[in-house]
Amino acid sequence: MRSATASASSDKGISRRFSRNHLIKRFKEIRQASLDIVDPLEPEDFVIQVMTNTSPTKWHLAHVSWFYETFVLDQVYDDYESMHPQYAYIFNSYYLQTGEPHARAKRGFLSRPTVNEVMEFRAYVNDEIVGFLENASEEQLQEFGPVIEIGNNHEQQHQELMITDFKFMFGQNPLYPVYREQQLPESTPPGELNWVSFDEGIYEIGNADDEFTYDNEHPRHREFLEAFALGDRLITNREFMEFMNDGGYERSELWLDDGWATVNEENWDSPLYWCRRDDGWYHYTLAGLRKPDPHEPVTHISYYEADAFARWAGARLPTEAEWEVAAGDQPYEGNFVESGRFHPQAAEDPGEDGLKQMYGDAWEWTKSSYDAYPGYEPLEGALGEYNGKFMCGQYVLRGGSCATSQTHIRKTYRNFFYPDARWQFNGIRLARTL
Amino acid sequence: MRSATASASSDKGISRRFSRNHLIKRFKEIRQASLDIVDPLEPEDFVIQVMTNTSPTKWHLAHVSWFYETFVLDQVYDDYESMHPQYAYIFNSYYLQTGEPHARAKRGFLSRPTVNEVMEFRAYVNDEIVGFLENASEEQLQEFGPVIEIGNNHEQQHQELMITDFKFMFGQNPLYPVYREQQLPESTPPGELNWVSFDEGIYEIGNADDEFTYDNEHPRHREFLEAFALGDRLITNREFMEFMNDGGYERSELWLDDGWATVNEENWDSPLYWCRRDDGWYHYTLAGLRKPDPHEPVTHISYYEADAFARWAGARLPTEAEWEVAAGDQPYEGNFVESGRFHPQAAEDPGEDGLKQMYGDAWEWTKSSYDAYPGYEPLEGALGEYNGKFMCGQYVLRGGSCATSQTHIRKTYRNFFYPDARWQFNGIRLARTL
Amino acid sequence: MRSATASASSDKGISRRFSRNHLIKRFKEIRQASLDIVDPLEPEDFVIQVMTNTSPTKWHLAHVSWFYETFVLDQVYDDYESMHPQYAYIFNSYYLQTGEPHARAKRGFLSRPTVNEVMEFRAYVNDEIVGFLENASEEQLQEFGPVIEIGNNHEQQHQELMITDFKFMFGQNPLYPVYREQQLPESTPPGELNWVSFDEGIYEIGNADDEFTYDNEHPRHREFLEAFALGDRLITNREFMEFMNDGGYERSELWLDDGWATVNEENWDSPLYWCRRDDGWYHYTLAGLRKPDPHEPVTHISYYEADAFARWAGARLPTEAEWEVAAGDQPYEGNFVESGRFHPQAAEDPGEDGLKQMYGDAWEWTKSSYDAYPGYEPLEGALGEYNGKFMCGQYVLRGGSCATSQTHIRKTYRNFFYPDARWQFNGIRLARTL
Amino acid sequence: MRSATASASSDKGISRRFSRNHLIKRFKEIRQASLDIVDPLEPEDFVIQVMTNTSPTKWHLAHVSWFYETFVLDQVYDDYESMHPQYAYIFNSYYLQTGEPHARAKRGFLSRPTVNEVMEFRAYVNDEIVGFLENASEEQLQEFGPVIEIGNNHEQQHQELMITDFKFMFGQNPLYPVYREQQLPESTPPGELNWVSFDEGIYEIGNADDEFTYDNEHPRHREFLEAFALGDRLITNREFMEFMNDGGYERSELWLDDGWATVNEENWDSPLYWCRRDDGWYHYTLAGLRKPDPHEPVTHISYYEADAFARWAGARLPTEAEWEVAAGDQPYEGNFVESGRFHPQAAEDPGEDGLKQMYGDAWEWTKSSYDAYPGYEPLEGALGEYNGKFMCGQYVLRGGSCATSQTHIRKTYRNFFYPDARWQFNGIRLARTL
Repeated sequence: MRSATASASSDKGISRRFSRNHLIKRFKEIRQASLDIVDPLEPEDFVIQVMTNTSPTKWHLAHVSWFYETFVLDQVYDDYESMHPQYAYIFNSYYLQTGEPHARAKRGFLSRPTVNEVMEFRAYVNDEIVGFLENASEEQLQEFGPVIEIGNNHEQQHQELMITDFKFMFGQNPLYPVYREQQLPESTPPGELNWVSFDEGIYEIGNADDEFTYDNEHPRHREFLEAFALGDRLITNREFMEFMNDGGYERSELWLDDGWATVNEENWDSPLYWCRRDDGWYHYTLAGLRKPDPHEPVTHISYYEADAFARWAGARLPTEAEWEVAAGDQPYEGNFVESGRFHPQAAEDPGEDGLKQMYGDAWEWTKSSYDAYPGYEPLEGALGEYNGKFMCGQYVLRGGSCATSQTHIRKTYRNFFYPDARWQFNGIRLARTL
Repeated sequence: MRSATASASSDKGISRRFSRNHLIKRFKEIRQASLDIVDPLEPEDFVIQVMTNTSPTKWHLAHVSWFYETFVLDQVYDDYESMHPQYAYIFNSYYLQTGEPHARAKRGFLSRPTVNEVMEFRAYVNDEIVGFLENASEEQLQEFGPVIEIGNNHEQQHQELMITDFKFMFGQNPLYPVYREQQLPESTPPGELNWVSFDEGIYEIGNADDEFTYDNEHPRHREFLEAFALGDRLITNREFMEFMNDGGYERSELWLDDGWATVNEENWDSPLYWCRRDDGWYHYTLAGLRKPDPHEPVTHISYYEADAFARWAGARLPTEAEWEVAAGDQPYEGNFVESGRFHPQAAEDPGEDGLKQMYGDAWEWTKSSYDAYPGYEPLEGALGEYNGKFMCGQYVLRGGSCATSQTHIRKTYRNFFYPDARWQFNGIRLARTL
Repeated sequence: MRSATASASSDKGISRRFSRNHLIKRFKEIRQASLDIVDPLEPEDFVIQVMTNTSPTKWHLAHVSWFYETFVLDQVYDDYESMHPQYAYIFNSYYLQTGEPHARAKRGFLSRPTVNEVMEFRAYVNDEIVGFLENASEEQLQEFGPVIEIGNNHEQQHQELMITDFKFMFGQNPLYPVYREQQLPESTPPGELNWVSFDEGIYEIGNADDEFTYDNEHPRHREFLEAFALGDRLITNREFMEFMNDGGYERSELWLDDGWATVNEENWDSPLYWCRRDDGWYHYTLAGLRKPDPHEPVTHISYYEADAFARWAGARLPTEAEWEVAAGDQPYEGNFVESGRFHPQAAEDPGEDGLKQMYGDAWEWTKSSYDAYPGYEPLEGALGEYNGKFMCGQYVLRGGSCATSQTHIRKTYRNFFYPDARWQFNGIRLARTL
Repeated sequence: MRSATASASSDKGISRRFSRNHLIKRFKEIRQASLDIVDPLEPEDFVIQVMTNTSPTKWHLAHVSWFYETFVLDQVYDDYESMHPQYAYIFNSYYLQTGEPHARAKRGFLSRPTVNEVMEFRAYVNDEIVGFLENASEEQLQEFGPVIEIGNNHEQQHQELMITDFKFMFGQNPLYPVYREQQLPESTPPGELNWVSFDEGIYEIGNADDEFTYDNEHPRHREFLEAFALGDRLITNREFMEFMNDGGYERSELWLDDGWATVNEENWDSPLYWCRRDDGWYHYTLAGLRKPDPHEPVTHISYYEADAFARWAGARLPTEAEWEVAAGDQPYEGNFVESGRFHPQAAEDPGEDGLKQMYGDAWEWTKSSYDAYPGYEPLEGALGEYNGKFMCGQYVLRGGSCATSQTHIRKTYRNFFYPDARWQFNGIRLARTL
């Protein structure tokens, strides 16, 4: 769904970030994190592809390994041999310059290789990468360190996708399997929505810092913004149910034309994973089916629903530039995958001023079409082949979710999905032009 | 795909066939046969549904168990409790009178219950059925013995479907997994096709004997047949490749209109599972990818292809009545699932007179639309609800295949599939009007 | 939809039937009949193709002319020139041996040639054919007379299709245009349904007489029939509404599996052209929207509906052999297109014995799949190329309708349509095995 | 496809622009212009809808009349009666607040009302509107004058759509009908592409003047632009054929992901209406099939093709703000519908400096997603109901085409279509970031 390529322009700091020991340590951590995520699964859970946009868990696990093979090991060694000659075909994705991939829609047709075989493949690649890193020259470290760091970030993205994809599979199952049991503490009301204001002016947008970034965050450039305000927290289930109870899903005047068509074709009457029972609404979470907590942020909604809710509320969604300006220098703290909660949680400290829940909990839909920044230049070669190829028809989301790693998110990070996507942990923050 | 209902009219012989010991023994044998078939599979192999017409192996295993629960245990015990309240929903098929089933096309969306859980479910049902049989009154045996016998036949049908369904899954996999390794002996040419003739006359068609039958084989009735001849064996791969080499798949005049449309929509240029490599044709078998043996019967072809081949050969397909008359009193011997070959084999004894390969190897397409025999009466109730509901748009096949159990086939057995079905072990026998 | 080819085997009588004067007279009459049918239409009515199965009226008018050009004029003259070099492409249908045709589904994309240009094309072909006939040698008459007679029958078939096709177009229009105003006399109840019985025996089926026939009516052959009975008249709107009121469209147990799927996909709850208003059911007729006359035969129903009705009524549909035996030597009289009624009418003379409405009013669905008679041989060449290509998946209908010409129907005439076809004037006659 | 609503905020000047005489004159002129456009058509040409995005010509002619009825006459008169009670249903489009419309995809199913009846309907509405204007009070003129002016602009938009829609219909016809014969003078090469540069800065975008505008051009607001340059003329057929000859349609790296999928699904290998013959490329124009003039602007291309061409050329498409800034105060002159050419023409005066072909010839794709300007406010009520509902998934085009009226276009005019739309007269102007 998205490209994974580094900004090769930030030469500074590579020696610092890509030291041998750091690279080995971080590589191992990230590879282990994938195993931790799938630990509660049964072999049968790794196989299924319920819709084309999702992939089987074992495909994810193997595909991220293929990435290191293709962009590191195949480049480093003249005679590198993969564990199986067909894996490069099966686990390639959309990188056409690396060969014709197995059709995306057929990833769920393959019972083999088995989970065990995929795990062997992971261990094989781990050994090769670690062996390379331990023995690489300093020059090799400088050349391939950044590529391995791309691979790490790529694997982190797929860790989030694994979670959303097996949630989608479990959410279709009448047995509503529990991924991880947990007793959630009762939440407290987050207080009324407050507005935080920002002045008009020319702002610098995009990344210029000495950190790992994707190329779509570049170049840093100027944008003029009219004065605006942002809601200080995410929209809650209670607020969204007010919209539902007010006929939100039945009133055409609230919807974009494409959104209204989708509502009717798909018979949407609530967020994804919600179902009505005799005693009210339930929704499937990775801890099983339960009643929506009224104070938690609403999630699993499309751009269309976020936009319709905002119109109903007399507001609008923020632009991505507004969001980035507003994020300022907030620390990257919040409810991330590391919390083990796998679900958004209610905003705390209702009395406190300022923007809350900017990071973690739920990706925040912006009204910005995903597009190239002025002066954007893709990298050379296969890694950069498709940097911009998704810049059409999708919308930018910001801030990360409860399925994102805290070490993966940053202020300038641009996630993007088609406006009908609901299976990600997506939510709503409102905005207003002042 | 098909109804599973007994002829309740053959009262004679039930005491003989449905003795307590016989019932227990046969039930156990058939339940065990299912386990033998899936023994070589990995857990991942039980889950996938590649097309709507196929089902995951674990669905088959559970569905046949649900059958005994619904039609025996639920009837016998007022307070019967299934192992899981949702299984009756998930593993029901098309029996609408027993409740709305889980959508057929979504059987492959369910990773749970796991294979182990399905095996527990099977064991649970086995215990219940055997417990019932051991303690049943003679009256109960008379009432439910025939129903259990239906369940046994139903499970045998699903044993064949399991084989064809996981073959279809493996056949889509670029790794071409081997189900069972085997070194096949070199076959010998079966000799030229000879014709065996039969006189015109009024013949009795359908079943009247004292054996288990489905209701669609009844009532026995008269048909007038013009004099005809049947090819003495199945059409071989060599003969079918002559058709292919003669432009068989490109010549519209050889095809039924619907068949020609299908050839073009699906880009058919060979039987299912065939693929062209640099050194010629290969086809996937359950022993892996190999070159087609020229002397083996061609299989995995649709009615359209069988019909086009017959037209090309200056012949036609037999009617089901002709096939049944020709079968005469041949013993039910041939290459069945019990051979463990899982593939058709070349006809033996080329010098010998008479019809060969009438049973086993490959189901033989007839030119008869699947329809009710004159005077056909479906049974009462849910078991008989759908006896005739498939009698539209399908064609009858006769004789069983290498995936059929020898204890399941008989002369009057009517199998049926839509004319585009290729994933069954279907083959060609030619006929002529004299 | 269907082949149009003569039986070339009936040599006798050609001199009688294909005399020069007879041929000219009949050709002119049939060509004029097409013009009479389209006389009430506006130019805009000739253009539209509402579904792939229907064709624009001007396509029909030109296509039947193309037929005479291709199979007569192009054969007679070495240097025959059509009026326009592209017409042979646009107005060809499925005769692949005569060249790749313009796609069937796109016939409604062509505003040109205009209706006037098509009429000029018709006049051009008329002149050429009449000119040929006036000057042909006796030998040429013998050779091409039968082909012209095929052309005439072909045009008669398309006359019926024109009527059903523009009815389908008008029936989609909220303005419900009136094709021909008429005040229909009040009908009288046809009396209870009576059964007319026939003995078991071997019967001769198919055509052997000295008349024009299609090759699918040959060869005449023997069939054994069990004793049976036929309803003495067609099923009426009143009877069909009893079925509807009894939940006929909601009870799965009454339907074939394919039929039940179609009912649910298409949301059928009544015959085609019926719509519910505040004061009850209406249906569109070529005289406009009106309430269904309870005594008229129900029409515009599919095979699925006919079959479900029969099951509900405790009966079945007849086989085509039964129908043909029952028709005996009844004269070909009834409510045909010549009546100008364009709608079925109630059976008369309720007191009279014997079968009524066997010809005209509505085509009668039989339970016989459309298949080759034993020993059937298609003609040579393009004319005979597709004689049998439709013999798959369709059902035979007998007897003609209110849109059929009386000079086109006969006892052995086999019409055929897919089981979901509703836009023809199709109705129900019941049968029973005795 | 688009909203038609006025800016109600420009109060000034209404008395000047909406004088009684001016209103009557302009209304009559625009109504007459529609008739002039359809004058060369035959009745059969008014009926057909080849794809859902296009509408039959007679639907356009009636729909624009319905607009005046609904938003003027129905409001002015308590007891206004349309000519036919069903027309408001048939000729409504997407204005849901005015009632459920007849399905868009079925507009081509209606042969009635005939063209003559539609013309009567137009005359009826003309009489009513002129009668109203002649007798309206000054207050009524102030209230309904702007609405009539919206109706006039709405009709002008549909005049362009009529041309593109019947071109699409003719372009599918193997006869390639000529709409208007014309001998086009030989064109001269437009010279090399030059770049015209613009400084970085904050610019005012959107409309503030005293002229008729749509609300999507408001409010006038500030945007910061980096320095940029625009190509001084449109891309020509010769240049586009270089792209084609360089494998433009086969090289995935040149395309957006959605674009590449579309190229492969639709088998695009050239602009719409192009076809290869033995002696090279031809394309259908409204003057018939001819060879593309190498110096004419390429047209009938999608956003995907424009974007791929720009990438191939080492450039990009302009943003709409860049286009508007660059347009400066150029007069609205160029090759519009008034020229009667109905096709783009080569740029003149190759020696001359500055931007050429900014207006007319072909709509210019911008890389700007169609979105609301900051502070955008839709109007109240049904007229404004859908102002913003199309602001998702579409791209803005600027400058008008050879099918646009010179009196309809302006600098701030925002046209928009989905990125796969090719049947409009769309072309390419390149841009670069400096």
